[in-house]
Amino acid sequence: MAKGSVLETVTAEEARRVIDAAAAKASEIGQPMDIAVVDAGGNLKAHLRMDGANIGSITIAINKAYTSIAFQSETGDLQEATRHDGPIFGLSDAHGGRLAVFPGGIPLVRDGSIMGAIGVSTGTIEQDQEVASAGAAAF
Amino acid sequence: MAKGSVLETVTAEEARRVIDAAAAKASEIGQPMDIAVVDAGGNLKAHLRMDGANIGSITIAINKAYTSIAFQSETGDLQEATRHDGPIFGLSDAHGGRLAVFPGGIPLVRDGSIMGAIGVSTGTIEQDQEVASAGAAAF
Amino acid sequence: MAKGSVLETVTAEEARRVIDAAAAKASEIGQPMDIAVVDAGGNLKAHLRMDGANIGSITIAINKAYTSIAFQSETGDLQEATRHDGPIFGLSDAHGGRLAVFPGGIPLVRDGSIMGAIGVSTGTIEQDQEVASAGAAAF
Amino acid sequence: MAKGSVLETVTAEEARRVIDAAAAKASEIGQPMDIAVVDAGGNLKAHLRMDGANIGSITIAINKAYTSIAFQSETGDLQEATRHDGPIFGLSDAHGGRLAVFPGGIPLVRDGSIMGAIGVSTGTIEQDQEVASAGAAAF
Repeated sequence: MAKGSVLETVTAEEARRVIDAAAAKASEIGQPMDIAVVDAGGNLKAHLRMDGANIGSITIAINKAYTSIAFQSETGDLQEATRHDGPIFGLSDAHGGRLAVFPGGIPLVRDGSIMGAIGVSTGTIEQDQEVASAGAAAF
Repeated sequence: MAKGSVLETVTAEEARRVIDAAAAKASEIGQPMDIAVVDAGGNLKAHLRMDGANIGSITIAINKAYTSIAFQSETGDLQEATRHDGPIFGLSDAHGGRLAVFPGGIPLVRDGSIMGAIGVSTGTIEQDQEVASAGAAAF
Repeated sequence: MAKGSVLETVTAEEARRVIDAAAAKASEIGQPMDIAVVDAGGNLKAHLRMDGANIGSITIAINKAYTSIAFQSETGDLQEATRHDGPIFGLSDAHGGRLAVFPGGIPLVRDGSIMGAIGVSTGTIEQDQEVASAGAAAF
Repeated sequence: MAKGSVLETVTAEEARRVIDAAAAKASEIGQPMDIAVVDAGGNLKAHLRMDGANIGSITIAINKAYTSIAFQSETGDLQEATRHDGPIFGLSDAHGGRLAVFPGGIPLVRDGSIMGAIGVSTGTIEQDQEVASAGAAAF
């Protein structure tokens, strides 16, 4: 039988540090957030729903992080191309309800490789992006 | 073993009262409706499909109520921001098919907390909203 | 428009304390774990996948916590009744793949009400249960 | 365009009467229940989660009612054949998590036709069956 353990990319300690930095920024701007970190495989590594954050944003935050891995980009970078008159309009429908194509998802990059991603949701897209950026900067 | 019972938010009696008030309004305007009430956790508490209401609206009514919990708002308040040129276009696709971003879902609020929500579907969005409002007013 | 915020049951601080206590026990016994905490409505509040824990156990841990809310019991208490010759054999199939009917999910109880639940997965069921118990004791 | 309205089988008034009779029996035996009624097409007509009933049993009750329509039988009649050594072992897995193969689902029959079904969940299977029977008797 093949022996081995799953390749770790973002560690639990790093995921916590990213979430804590994001939560600190969310507190600073007064907007509670759902914050998720996924690893290089797009699988959930850690999540925190701050008090007052949306229940509906649990999945949105996780899906923003997943989408950043899935398309190797910030989710905000998918926004124009997926609009009604864009070249890949319909993308958001095309993956079983797992994609988020608006700001708030940012890859966690090290040495040129995407090692994970953070997704943030509940605020405006500007707030989500700001908080996700603060998290990513702590990676 | 841990002993306890799940925290009740909307009671069965309250859910029935909300549905009955909504159904009375629906009858008054001559438009049969699917009517759902969920608790503070977004879980179904009661449902009624009036005679002549749409089968497809069973899920829409439940999802409108869920969406009101999920985003702490009326579903109608999500409509402009999720349109093709809106800042969160694509939101409705980003949560596994559970979100409804048009009128007919309204939170049930008590003492500043959202204790549940009503969702109404089958009519026009104006009718859905009117019937949901009548239900919410009876909470 | 109805104004209000979703009722909090388990706070973010409590969820973190529960996860940290569970993770400490997991480290003590040398078995990395997926650990999830959900609120009284069964919605995810916080999650941590320790380094070395299973990717497949992300969902199992979340579903164990959900199942504890869903049936107001430890998941291990469902095990005998759902076995092949049990009275509710088939329960685990009857809810769209969201139920876990083996040890590792424990309600978080306060003043007789289930305010949330912890779910733990990756180890043996004895380990999962031990780690979940350590988490629940910290609530 | 084809004109018409969906064929009504169980009316809203009948569904309410069935649920109320079931709820009265549930109260009598001191076991709160999730109670669902579906129409001849297996689509939800009405639901009530009594205070104290399980959140997890929302779906189980609905699926019991659906299963009774789906296989034109009481759900309890499917139990032996779907056990580990039965001829259709695996049935409960074979329909996307929508089937319940233990007691508590009973067809609502009129003039030899199945016009709908009731599904009851939260108690023991004996209790679920007793409460479902009381509901079906009121049809």
